[in-house]
Amino acid sequence: MPQPVLPSVNSSHRLGLDPINTPSRLLLGPGPSNAHPTVLQALARTPIGHLDPLYIQLMGEVQELLRYVWQTDNRLTIPMSGTGSAAMEATLANMIEPGDKVLVAIKGYFGLRLADMAGRYRAKVVTIERPWGEAFSLEELEQALITHKPAILAMVHAETSTGVCQPMEGIGELCRQHDCLLVLDTVTSLGAVPLFLDAWKVDLAYSCSQKGLSCPPGLGPFTMGPRAEAKLAARSGKVPNWYLDVSLLNQYWGSDRVYHHTAPVNMNFGMREALRLLAEEGLENAWTRHRRNAMALWTGLESLGLELLVPEELRLPTLTTVHIPEGVDGKAFSRHLLDHHGIELGGGLGALAGKVWRIGLMGYNSTPENVERLLKLLQSELPAFRSSSPAMASVG
Amino acid sequence: MPQPVLPSVNSSHRLGLDPINTPSRLLLGPGPSNAHPTVLQALARTPIGHLDPLYIQLMGEVQELLRYVWQTDNRLTIPMSGTGSAAMEATLANMIEPGDKVLVAIKGYFGLRLADMAGRYRAKVVTIERPWGEAFSLEELEQALITHKPAILAMVHAETSTGVCQPMEGIGELCRQHDCLLVLDTVTSLGAVPLFLDAWKVDLAYSCSQKGLSCPPGLGPFTMGPRAEAKLAARSGKVPNWYLDVSLLNQYWGSDRVYHHTAPVNMNFGMREALRLLAEEGLENAWTRHRRNAMALWTGLESLGLELLVPEELRLPTLTTVHIPEGVDGKAFSRHLLDHHGIELGGGLGALAGKVWRIGLMGYNSTPENVERLLKLLQSELPAFRSSSPAMASVG
Repeated sequence: MPQPVLPSVNSSHRLGLDPINTPSRLLLGPGPSNAHPTVLQALARTPIGHLDPLYIQLMGEVQELLRYVWQTDNRLTIPMSGTGSAAMEATLANMIEPGDKVLVAIKGYFGLRLADMAGRYRAKVVTIERPWGEAFSLEELEQALITHKPAILAMVHAETSTGVCQPMEGIGELCRQHDCLLVLDTVTSLGAVPLFLDAWKVDLAYSCSQKGLSCPPGLGPFTMGPRAEAKLAARSGKVPNWYLDVSLLNQYWGSDRVYHHTAPVNMNFGMREALRLLAEEGLENAWTRHRRNAMALWTGLESLGLELLVPEELRLPTLTTVHIPEGVDGKAFSRHLLDHHGIELGGGLGALAGKVWRIGLMGYNSTPENVERLLKLLQSELPAFRSSSPAMASVG
Repeated sequence: MPQPVLPSVNSSHRLGLDPINTPSRLLLGPGPSNAHPTVLQALARTPIGHLDPLYIQLMGEVQELLRYVWQTDNRLTIPMSGTGSAAMEATLANMIEPGDKVLVAIKGYFGLRLADMAGRYRAKVVTIERPWGEAFSLEELEQALITHKPAILAMVHAETSTGVCQPMEGIGELCRQHDCLLVLDTVTSLGAVPLFLDAWKVDLAYSCSQKGLSCPPGLGPFTMGPRAEAKLAARSGKVPNWYLDVSLLNQYWGSDRVYHHTAPVNMNFGMREALRLLAEEGLENAWTRHRRNAMALWTGLESLGLELLVPEELRLPTLTTVHIPEGVDGKAFSRHLLDHHGIELGGGLGALAGKVWRIGLMGYNSTPENVERLLKLLQSELPAFRSSSPAMASVG
């Protein structure tokens, strides 16, 4: 049989490029943060098959260490093969059946996103809101549970858009009293801020790889407990998302090893090393390190005359929001730090766009040296960006 | 305000592990395939921010080179931040509105999966089937379009479960005549087998990173043309999948650079290098190389007395399915090659489970040396796995 005559190849999109030559940045924004060098080296290993016995062993190690960093015994603890946003969607996609009432407690950008996502899975979405920079009290959450009687309460532990850490004591217990599942966003807390999923009675949680875990972005840790498993098992129809369907994923991650999708093996090499290093340091030590370095940052920022958005008792050690001083073009200053000093800061998101910088000290980047380097730069470089005002001289 | 009293840390899941020490395998299964060493080195670079001007430049390079390897001018050509399966789901999630009729042409495992996925997006799914190892004729596709009048025809170019390459001439034209969008799976063809998306009038396609592109798994190239864009723009509701919603993704990949999710930057470093190397080699050269090495493999296998599943004119150069000889425990032989020679072969999937081996020669792995190494091993190692039969002596 003759091969068909093929068209000729069009080379209009055939770019001729030099080898990649990205610079070494210090990433002090909301993420990605720098990865540990050992983790980066693991990414560069020769891939192995996703059904190779050695890979299956590695999967078990990753699962077990995720349980440790989340402080949970949940059987269904796995990294989703996408970023943290995919793991976020996985919690809702697997739990929501059409018509389920989902209460979203919104105090920043990622709460808004949870509400958007839940609507796509045909939930009846109800919301309560706090201004960006604040947290919810136990009383207002209880009142909302009583009023709305939701099947699911979704909320954010560490709100990356504001730098607020939601106090969690008592919330899980309330959810059980009101027969409601608790979904928790731990994207900016896992590995860096105290987290006790089981003690806090959290039913589902998700996170990312590129913050407290010191791995590049690309994997989304996910976990669900027995109450969530029961809701999944009782679903009347298929999960309306094939890629994130935990009932299928569990046939691969569980003992059957049924092929679902080709795992991102190199990213999981990195995740395994990131978790190994964190277990070696010890969770309490990592938490203490993050708090100590954040406190040094806060003191330093305030001594430069800068104001922090969040009251100290609600501040995340991983992410600090600083008001951009009046008269300063925040974007121009960030660009200056990036272009001339190789340091990335984050800008504001949503309601805080143009109003704050977001400074991350996460995982491998949470060091006294990085705090000092940034404070020195703020001291030396910021004055030139302030418009001439009486306050200027006193800061420079 | 005092910090709340926290539980004490439970260390029961705190594994103490040695540094990662995976071996160097030669991956000659259905994927992942080995990645190019230059690509692996790119993965190990320090991450940069997903809104860094240098990253935005890199995104443009990746998009442009994906257009080249797919031979398309499609504006919406991006790597999804998940594996090929996520990109597969993205085509359906964005296109299907509830009640749309989707015709799936099934001739292997991945056709079955398309049908499963389409149902989850509330399509009316109709299917036509060919036995595993065969392809569809233009006539039967036309008849099905006339009978079912679908809004979308979804099919697989390179069926990874069987090793069949579907002849594409005329199918896109038929779909236009019948006012139907054409979705094409190019997971096992992109970069290795002639593909002319625009000339073939394909409306949406998806692929993976770990086969013809010589990058590890973790990204899912995705493209959609103007007719698909028009259907997306005309949707009455939101795409029922936030992570894969192309209308949101396009605000990040397009000129607005609106934050959607934190991009897997290191995987994209690898993708950029993989595509750069492919453009350097030239598409026609890469296609020719794959065909030449596959033909050498086929000749060698047949001269060892092994039988191939697929008739030569339908064979994929990237993936060859070989009947496991009678009396041989296919799984035990694969395990022997893996454990003693560091070579991975694939087993059969679905209808072909236990019946075939799948041998991949993809991207970086498609070399005469690998063909020779495998053939020599089959010659020396296979006889011991044949049960004693008259045929045995003539093969060893």
